[in-house]
Amino acid sequence: MKKASPPRRASIISIGNELLTGQTVNTNASYLSERLLSISIPVVSSYTIGDDIDSIVRALKLASNDADIIIATGGLGPTDDDLTRQAMAKLLKVELQLQDELLQKIENFFISQERQMPENNKVQAYIPAGAKALANNLGTAPGIMADADNKLLIALPGVPSEMKQMFEESVLPELTALAIDQVIVIRKLKCFPSTSLRAGGTGESNIAELLGPMMQRGRNPLINCTVHCGVITLTIIATAEDKDQAQRMAEKDEKSLRDKLGEMIYGTGEQSLSEVVGEQLAQQKKTLAVAESCTGGTLAKLLTDISGASRYFTYGWVTYSNTAKITELGIPFDLTERYGAVSEQVAEAMAQCARKKAATDFAIAITGIAGPTGASEQKPVGLVYISVDSDNSCDTQRQFFSGDRESIRLRAAQTALNMLRLRLKI
Amino acid sequence: MKKASPPRRASIISIGNELLTGQTVNTNASYLSERLLSISIPVVSSYTIGDDIDSIVRALKLASNDADIIIATGGLGPTDDDLTRQAMAKLLKVELQLQDELLQKIENFFISQERQMPENNKVQAYIPAGAKALANNLGTAPGIMADADNKLLIALPGVPSEMKQMFEESVLPELTALAIDQVIVIRKLKCFPSTSLRAGGTGESNIAELLGPMMQRGRNPLINCTVHCGVITLTIIATAEDKDQAQRMAEKDEKSLRDKLGEMIYGTGEQSLSEVVGEQLAQQKKTLAVAESCTGGTLAKLLTDISGASRYFTYGWVTYSNTAKITELGIPFDLTERYGAVSEQVAEAMAQCARKKAATDFAIAITGIAGPTGASEQKPVGLVYISVDSDNSCDTQRQFFSGDRESIRLRAAQTALNMLRLRLKI
Repeated sequence: MKKASPPRRASIISIGNELLTGQTVNTNASYLSERLLSISIPVVSSYTIGDDIDSIVRALKLASNDADIIIATGGLGPTDDDLTRQAMAKLLKVELQLQDELLQKIENFFISQERQMPENNKVQAYIPAGAKALANNLGTAPGIMADADNKLLIALPGVPSEMKQMFEESVLPELTALAIDQVIVIRKLKCFPSTSLRAGGTGESNIAELLGPMMQRGRNPLINCTVHCGVITLTIIATAEDKDQAQRMAEKDEKSLRDKLGEMIYGTGEQSLSEVVGEQLAQQKKTLAVAESCTGGTLAKLLTDISGASRYFTYGWVTYSNTAKITELGIPFDLTERYGAVSEQVAEAMAQCARKKAATDFAIAITGIAGPTGASEQKPVGLVYISVDSDNSCDTQRQFFSGDRESIRLRAAQTALNMLRLRLKI
Repeated sequence: MKKASPPRRASIISIGNELLTGQTVNTNASYLSERLLSISIPVVSSYTIGDDIDSIVRALKLASNDADIIIATGGLGPTDDDLTRQAMAKLLKVELQLQDELLQKIENFFISQERQMPENNKVQAYIPAGAKALANNLGTAPGIMADADNKLLIALPGVPSEMKQMFEESVLPELTALAIDQVIVIRKLKCFPSTSLRAGGTGESNIAELLGPMMQRGRNPLINCTVHCGVITLTIIATAEDKDQAQRMAEKDEKSLRDKLGEMIYGTGEQSLSEVVGEQLAQQKKTLAVAESCTGGTLAKLLTDISGASRYFTYGWVTYSNTAKITELGIPFDLTERYGAVSEQVAEAMAQCARKKAATDFAIAITGIAGPTGASEQKPVGLVYISVDSDNSCDTQRQFFSGDRESIRLRAAQTALNMLRLRLKI
């Protein structure tokens, strides 16, 4: 393959009607994206199209607009609706040619399975004139690699296991050789903005304001911002000619972000809040109990998602009824009547009672309205009280979370973890 | 909206750099594909592109080649890298206009959360001149709908919960009116195969064997089979010229599947096991308590995912330590020493004690090794005991689940729900 000038960018084209019905999840595209990025080739677009020759040709052309490497998966099978090789030939303006060596291989594949080759499979031995065939050790469909106007076109099978093996064995070494003059270093910072009403809220848009020009498009390093259930992930993508330089650029940006965002940043990489809080508890040899009402086990589940959580997490109560709050936790029996189950007083009593019963260093209690039912004018859906109790104080936050039942519950549990994280911060 | 001649075809454009790194799975596209197909609008292409205005415009144009309805998700946020509204304006060759009504709505959203609107969010009140804004009841980003050369362009937020609500409320009714000619009827059957070691396991491959030729490609109705955390979803897709005929075809297949799979089928549509069990409990006016060890709140969370679960679910214990099992549930103090915490005896005692303490009709207990740590030669990762106790019997199953910590925990909780479902079956 010719080596053109850097930087290299890739585009992925996933072919197959079944990918468009929403029934089959396209795992090939995310696999390829991740593998390509790991060798410093960013994926700039990804197309999913049906088994239609014109659509495939159009997508291949569009992909060539902003990428140098185009990888198509699927449509290499033996049936009439497999049209990728025809589309490639059409784009390259060449004929399909029978390759005797490929035909032999396909025949051998069937012999090894003690079956006779169906006539249909013969079509898999045809590839566009001038293109290179890629070996398939797990199935019958060979891959195809071709040069077109200084763009590299690659067609791989749609079956994930076959695609992966072919990519790793025949494509990755070739691409790694192409991607030598550009290095990408990626850093991820995980933030949990405090939405405390007392503290003054900080959401995604506030972060954008805080970061200002750092988030500009086209900047290098590029800083991406995504939000998922209250957790904001800032991804720093530094591109440079050598690894050291890219590393330095990423580190410099990480430092600026840490200066600007302070304790809002709770971790790096793929760390979850419960993982970070778990490490704090384990390191400080502290223990934790939880008492949950509206979150109904969500907080306990997040804590026990971490293997080894038994070092610090010992007791959890899901006191979904008022009676359970009274008989199991032992909160004063008139409290729910006087203030309602969703109140500062009940949250505080739940945390204090849970800590006493479990004899732990900390206890967290959550009570609120997760909706869509159960709300009143005074207590709307999304209103949640969270208490964190320890031997010297009990902090209670009143919060409003937006979204559906699932996200209100998850946000409440995450906010509780974040309160404990800030408390445990040394 | 103008009504052009059918059949209508759709294209989906997913916007966001984070979707291209392989880190974030694009669930929006498959959700939209499925929902569109359910109203007989097939999706013919799906594009994923980064936060780049020219790429967005190019993708919108390409999509117009083979689709009449183009739905874009993402890029409507308040930050500089949110460029969908600009791209739409560019494609439509119009300016962005501030809509006072939208600005008021966004300001009110922040007021309802007792926060001040950051200056950045103002941009969300701008939409292309002549376009229609779609209400967002869960967040700040309004959607956009516009006509362009007889094509319908729709932009929705990227946050899945906001996207879904907006699609269901504002887009689906509009599209249903457009789709008139070919009729697709979709039926979904949800199955939970018993993997009981005693009963003899039935997994996905057994289902495929049981169904045989019904699962052939190209068959009409088409039967798709997907598996997620032990739940097998069989989707019947019947295509016909009129609704009655498609309905009859789907019903006939549903009947055959029900005959073949029997009580393995627990529900239809999007029903979850916890929803079905919750309905059974509510209808039969029965109550439930749970005591969890290795699942650490997962079962309680699944149960309380359902709004109104307080009608039947009252008490939950996460007894993650042996001490908690003894002091909170009151299981005999020598049981964990004699048999180990992961044993039939402890599971049984946990369920019996939980039922007694909570005074419920049923109690479920789960104890096992979720891994990756905590295993021994006798008790490998994946070994789980599940007990269901009622006033006349206590059933305990010994199960082995494969997979990682997350899936072992989820499978265990789902299996427990399925045991109760079969017990409650009238």
